[in-house]
Amino acid sequence: MAARIIDGKAISQAIRDELKDRISQVKASLGRPPGLVILLVGDDPASQVYVRSKLKTGEDAGMKVTLETLPSSASLEQVLEVVNRYNADDACDGILVQSPLPKALGHAAEQQVFDAIHPSKDVDGFSPISAGLVAQNRSGFAPCTPAGVIEMLQRSDIEMAGKHAVVVGRSDIVGKPMAMLLLHQNATVTICHSRTPDLAAMTRQADILVAAIGRPAMITAEHVSPGTVVVDVGINSVTDAAQAAQIFENHPNRMAVFEKRGSVLVGDVHPDVANVAAAITPVPGGVGPLTIAMLMANTVKSAEGRSQ
Amino acid sequence: MAARIIDGKAISQAIRDELKDRISQVKASLGRPPGLVILLVGDDPASQVYVRSKLKTGEDAGMKVTLETLPSSASLEQVLEVVNRYNADDACDGILVQSPLPKALGHAAEQQVFDAIHPSKDVDGFSPISAGLVAQNRSGFAPCTPAGVIEMLQRSDIEMAGKHAVVVGRSDIVGKPMAMLLLHQNATVTICHSRTPDLAAMTRQADILVAAIGRPAMITAEHVSPGTVVVDVGINSVTDAAQAAQIFENHPNRMAVFEKRGSVLVGDVHPDVANVAAAITPVPGGVGPLTIAMLMANTVKSAEGRSQ
Repeated sequence: MAARIIDGKAISQAIRDELKDRISQVKASLGRPPGLVILLVGDDPASQVYVRSKLKTGEDAGMKVTLETLPSSASLEQVLEVVNRYNADDACDGILVQSPLPKALGHAAEQQVFDAIHPSKDVDGFSPISAGLVAQNRSGFAPCTPAGVIEMLQRSDIEMAGKHAVVVGRSDIVGKPMAMLLLHQNATVTICHSRTPDLAAMTRQADILVAAIGRPAMITAEHVSPGTVVVDVGINSVTDAAQAAQIFENHPNRMAVFEKRGSVLVGDVHPDVANVAAAITPVPGGVGPLTIAMLMANTVKSAEGRSQ
Repeated sequence: MAARIIDGKAISQAIRDELKDRISQVKASLGRPPGLVILLVGDDPASQVYVRSKLKTGEDAGMKVTLETLPSSASLEQVLEVVNRYNADDACDGILVQSPLPKALGHAAEQQVFDAIHPSKDVDGFSPISAGLVAQNRSGFAPCTPAGVIEMLQRSDIEMAGKHAVVVGRSDIVGKPMAMLLLHQNATVTICHSRTPDLAAMTRQADILVAAIGRPAMITAEHVSPGTVVVDVGINSVTDAAQAAQIFENHPNRMAVFEKRGSVLVGDVHPDVANVAAAITPVPGGVGPLTIAMLMANTVKSAEGRSQ
């Protein structure tokens, strides 16, 4: 039996629709819309796509989204100067620095920049204080992707309490906060990663399986038991024809995308998992749209905090 | 075959011995020993025992430990006044507010007090920024009990990388940071709790089992597979004769303690688990001594940060 497909676009739209009233209330009480600042450093093409999408989504929702750009030659001081300017700006509720920063800034730059964002404006939830508030199940800004996964499961009536959730991946921005959020929904939670010796033995135990690895189609049908709900966080661009043909052997419509564009998006979950799982999030159109919706929700929440 | 008994007292002593040189260096560079302030509010007898033990251990190690006391009638403002005074005191490297605070202060008081401790003096590691730094595997103060468990396993040559660690309990001060610290040692980590439907099915998979539940002898031989390393974080005082007799049926020396004192300490792990496990930490004399050693280590680390 084919898995139920969880429609991330529709859920994202529902969340954004619900935000409209709250945005109106912010406007009424603050005399301005919720304000999000996006800082884009350099000219990474994927980052440009993401930033455009965030800009459009925010503006469509009635927020004010300000794009700040710096060239890839920018210094760390220049980046921090922009962050600090908006930390001090009362009309700014959220600051998002698009990741990744140019490599020339050094590998420690992202952490320094994320740390510099005022906790009350950390709508990406990447700072240690945000991570700590998530771990302690307190009000704060949870990172948008794992927060979006919880929303998605709740709005799809997928019970988490008492279930075994297996998270594959242990990044600061997805895997670890995902585990904490599932734990606070009363799931029993296992975190697997590259050093897990028999990954399939763990993932086959999952009632809910979250793949956040960043490797195309790594989770195959052998990793999944019938009845599992599979959440695919990965968004990988495959540009190799042989790899695309292998992954999408039974999915001619996806191969057609590859043949038209020379690349195709694939999640961390192999498309054939849909033949085994009870429910699955597609890529694209699954977790991705939720991430943007939660960025908007975090920004509105921040603005509401200022209007009290 | 009886389990190897992990000697927490000896490991704690080794850690404290190693701190002596570092304490001498702090004295040389700051002109004063590392300074720890302990604030005890009210007259809870167990808290008084813990505080005396921390005082003595700190002073024996060559630190300056200052005990501040407030009556159980103290207001939240009075508690915060003491914390803020030592936040501003350059000779204070660590502030510990003994938990639990008197119930009269209200259930939110502890969080407010822990949050008020300056992050650079949060040697108990209970504030959200400390929790976030632990989650992000960055330098900071990890809560003493889970940090002590890691030290104990490392110093006992128990491999964590690639192993399956199962943590039972999800408190902010033990279970959750324990899971993060084990993850950063490259263990695959499962967090179980009161809502886990079949606890034994999870714990029997553990290579390393950490019990941090706070219920006497809850983990029985049925929960443990041969070969498992069992870490018992619980310290429960049993005062009921029938309960003591049941738990210590095969341990006449422990029943003798009960008969002499009218109470006996028991961990979260049933003593008969020692017949199944590969290695086990005893109660008392297991994790407890490590917790105090890590408090000292965190205070010395804090002082070293000031002397740079």
